[in-house]
Amino acid sequence: MYKLFYSPGTIALTPHIVLEEIGASFDAIRVNFADGEQTKPDYLKINPKGRVPALITEQGILTETPAILLYLAQKHPDAKLAPLDDVFQLGKMQSINSYLSSTAHVNHAHRRRGTRWVTEKSSIEDMGRKVKSNMEDCFALIQSEMFKGPWVMGDDYSVADPYLFTVSRWLEGDGVNIADFPKIEAHFARMMERPAVQRALALHTA
Amino acid sequence: MYKLFYSPGTIALTPHIVLEEIGASFDAIRVNFADGEQTKPDYLKINPKGRVPALITEQGILTETPAILLYLAQKHPDAKLAPLDDVFQLGKMQSINSYLSSTAHVNHAHRRRGTRWVTEKSSIEDMGRKVKSNMEDCFALIQSEMFKGPWVMGDDYSVADPYLFTVSRWLEGDGVNIADFPKIEAHFARMMERPAVQRALALHTA
Ligand SMILES: N[C@@H](CCC(=O)N[C@@H](CS)C(=O)NCC(=O)O)C(=O)O
Ligand SMILES: N[C@@H](CCC(=O)N[C@@H](CS)C(=O)NCC(=O)O)C(=O)O
Repeated sequence: MYKLFYSPGTIALTPHIVLEEIGASFDAIRVNFADGEQTKPDYLKINPKGRVPALITEQGILTETPAILLYLAQKHPDAKLAPLDDVFQLGKMQSINSYLSSTAHVNHAHRRRGTRWVTEKSSIEDMGRKVKSNMEDCFALIQSEMFKGPWVMGDDYSVADPYLFTVSRWLEGDGVNIADFPKIEAHFARMMERPAVQRALALHTA
Repeated sequence: MYKLFYSPGTIALTPHIVLEEIGASFDAIRVNFADGEQTKPDYLKINPKGRVPALITEQGILTETPAILLYLAQKHPDAKLAPLDDVFQLGKMQSINSYLSSTAHVNHAHRRRGTRWVTEKSSIEDMGRKVKSNMEDCFALIQSEMFKGPWVMGDDYSVADPYLFTVSRWLEGDGVNIADFPKIEAHFARMMERPAVQRALALHTA
């Protein structure tokens, strides 16, 4: 039995979808961002970084989306959520997940979480103005250089798919028109058809 | 025969050390940042993101430090550079590497690469003022919550060690006194004693 700490619409949707794909038994525990619950002592005992997702496993707690995804894929090999038998293809998948985490997600975070990096109101505004084009640059690169189709890694669905899907959901709020990236738009529609995605989304759109 | 594209002192030092630890045969190819070589067509053919490191393998090109590190550890299991037989411990290692990549490295990048996220001179300056305390926060967390000692993962050296070492080397330039983090300082000294580290550093300090 896993426990997943999440907040709706955040990157925690990614492992949430993966748990549904696996058919794992888990509790989804909502962390109330409106009350700043992620920064309070009880939650900091679970994740001292004050972020979601955090996954409680039988062996202990894991944080950081790319790490949780690899763990779940390796722990549940029958779900075939990563190219576990091919070290190079796994490296390719990890490269995409790492790019989503360290570049695309980070660029998005500059819209609402600017105070992590600057103090002045004028800097926050300046930062906000660059988010759209930064996200466009990321998605142009993902579409042309990383995405194989129909799934991220090609014929085989993997944990990179819910990761890309979750970040794609942020585009509209970032001022980006997903239709400018037809392969990503088609991937998004393809994801929406999956029962596991629909089940996870129910808790993220309520 | 690998080819590693690097620029001195960058995060490319991490896979560079790992290649030395493995005793792999490789060419280290310097990308001249002073001439902006990382943004020119020839290099963009290797890494369209315009960044280092990029690792050319027999099967193709890999980018993103955490992905390259996992690939090398899995491809060369005899070097014992990751807890490959323990899915949870591997998840822990990936979590640390992911944090270094998506949070610590990114915070550091706000000192010299601010124009990725803002345009105005005043915002760049504002950003610069926050780098020291952000890096201090990261290293306080790494020391208290992630670092086991004597190596990052405990008794066993892993690819997380050169990763932490490389980011630790940036602290002085970021205005942080490594002595404020005694476990990290001791780890740094321990790393400096390793022949593989010394061999790799020769190309990064010339
Ligand atoms: N590198 C982490 C980032 C996690 C992260 O930043 N999560 C955001 C939600 S998308 C969060 O918890 N923010 C809360 C806050 O900043 O207070 C990962 O990939 O899991
Ligand atoms: N997420 C990438 C980041 C790579 C990166 O940002 N490398 C820097 C050097 S530390 C770079 O190539 N910068 C060149 C530039 O910004 O023009 C990784 O972990 O490998």
